[in-house]
Amino acid sequence: MDLLEIKAINTDAQRWLTKAATNLRQHLNTHFQVQTKSDRNDLVTNFDKETENFLVDQIRQNFPNDKIVSEEGFGDQVQTMHGRVWFVDPIDGTLNFVKQRNDFAMMIGLYEDGRNVLGYILNVMTDELLWGGPEIGLHLNEKVQPLPLDQPLAAGLFGVNGPMFAYNHEHVRDIAFASSGARILGSAGLEFQQVILGRQVGYISRLAPWDVAAGKILAETAGLSVTTIDGDPLDMLKSQVVLVTTRRALPEVQKIRQS
Amino acid sequence: MDLLEIKAINTDAQRWLTKAATNLRQHLNTHFQVQTKSDRNDLVTNFDKETENFLVDQIRQNFPNDKIVSEEGFGDQVQTMHGRVWFVDPIDGTLNFVKQRNDFAMMIGLYEDGRNVLGYILNVMTDELLWGGPEIGLHLNEKVQPLPLDQPLAAGLFGVNGPMFAYNHEHVRDIAFASSGARILGSAGLEFQQVILGRQVGYISRLAPWDVAAGKILAETAGLSVTTIDGDPLDMLKSQVVLVTTRRALPEVQKIRQS
Repeated sequence: MDLLEIKAINTDAQRWLTKAATNLRQHLNTHFQVQTKSDRNDLVTNFDKETENFLVDQIRQNFPNDKIVSEEGFGDQVQTMHGRVWFVDPIDGTLNFVKQRNDFAMMIGLYEDGRNVLGYILNVMTDELLWGGPEIGLHLNEKVQPLPLDQPLAAGLFGVNGPMFAYNHEHVRDIAFASSGARILGSAGLEFQQVILGRQVGYISRLAPWDVAAGKILAETAGLSVTTIDGDPLDMLKSQVVLVTTRRALPEVQKIRQS
Repeated sequence: MDLLEIKAINTDAQRWLTKAATNLRQHLNTHFQVQTKSDRNDLVTNFDKETENFLVDQIRQNFPNDKIVSEEGFGDQVQTMHGRVWFVDPIDGTLNFVKQRNDFAMMIGLYEDGRNVLGYILNVMTDELLWGGPEIGLHLNEKVQPLPLDQPLAAGLFGVNGPMFAYNHEHVRDIAFASSGARILGSAGLEFQQVILGRQVGYISRLAPWDVAAGKILAETAGLSVTTIDGDPLDMLKSQVVLVTTRRALPEVQKIRQS
């Protein structure tokens, strides 16, 4: 893809997200339906489904040959990262969405032959859209976003998954205690935003492809490291424990894990 | 105090907070000095001191006979809750303030003979001021704030202190896992806001008087329960483990603690 095409797709993607978020905020207090999926805290709402349906529809209409990975079943069965692959998470942080009507994100990621192209994390209620990619740089709404400082682990806060932190799975508690302190926000997208904006030195959690796809593109554009917990490259088509952190904190985290 | 006097004090307190927050936001990126107190994560900045000095000064000028409890040493040595006692926390969530420049609060609480009078929790960066008291009700900025639903523990998210959650001190982990999920925000004031706005079903942490004074007034005005971890009334002049929760969740939390 050349820069002109990337910029054209970027204009489209931002328009879709704006429309989806505006629609969601308008109807948030009038028709809200919640269903349980695998357990009492695995929830889905009419907004997850409607938003995903809308975003997938826009992609299909504009780019009928592209493949789509998405959470609620409107996408494709994608087996390889060959060609152009979109990742759509209509509502990231569904528990926050249901319980708080706040602190959740819409996310889109676009890859070509496995390479980062464009990522979007929209904090729906504050309307803060973090967007960009390797060709167009990093932006927060209308402004170019400065890259985060390359801080060591002890200098920053660390976002964690609650149960992994509580039970010290994969040394997550040890890692968090070696930082300035643990934070639990309940949205992978907003945790990625915090690290990319330089407000946290890292984040660790078990994540599905749609939870991580946009964040990985933006974090790598910001000069951060995004790997599995073992330091390997992500497999974008499966769930895995994901670590996003500054380059300087990465070896410190790995040393704690091996201790 | 009669309603007229409470309303006059309310006008003053809001004006002081607006001025202090505006000043802080204006100088946030120009002169920021951090010092360490008891350990590497116990921090104080020039803004904590300047803001406390300003707020304490306003109280002294307007109400020279009142007593003041505050974090950074500009207040009085207060031995009893007799008479009018102010509590000032210039920056609640200092670690967030230093590391994120976000998600921190200014708080003021006013008691008379130990009774709740007026409370203020200002999220400085979003400019959301939760304010009120038993005589004037609950407000978020210009709007009357509806009271939170009386939800059971399993229906809502629960804010926790990181180390208490990680080590299950006082059964905090068990309590959080019986809720919809744990959250760690790093600011007692913002955690109180979440519970009062109905976004969390509770919050538990070890808190100093200035951390809890405003939140207690607002939470009780909102019909929530605020007690020690043992279910006893707070001693407003000492540090203690504080539990704020819906009335319906309170016996559920107590049952878990006694298990």
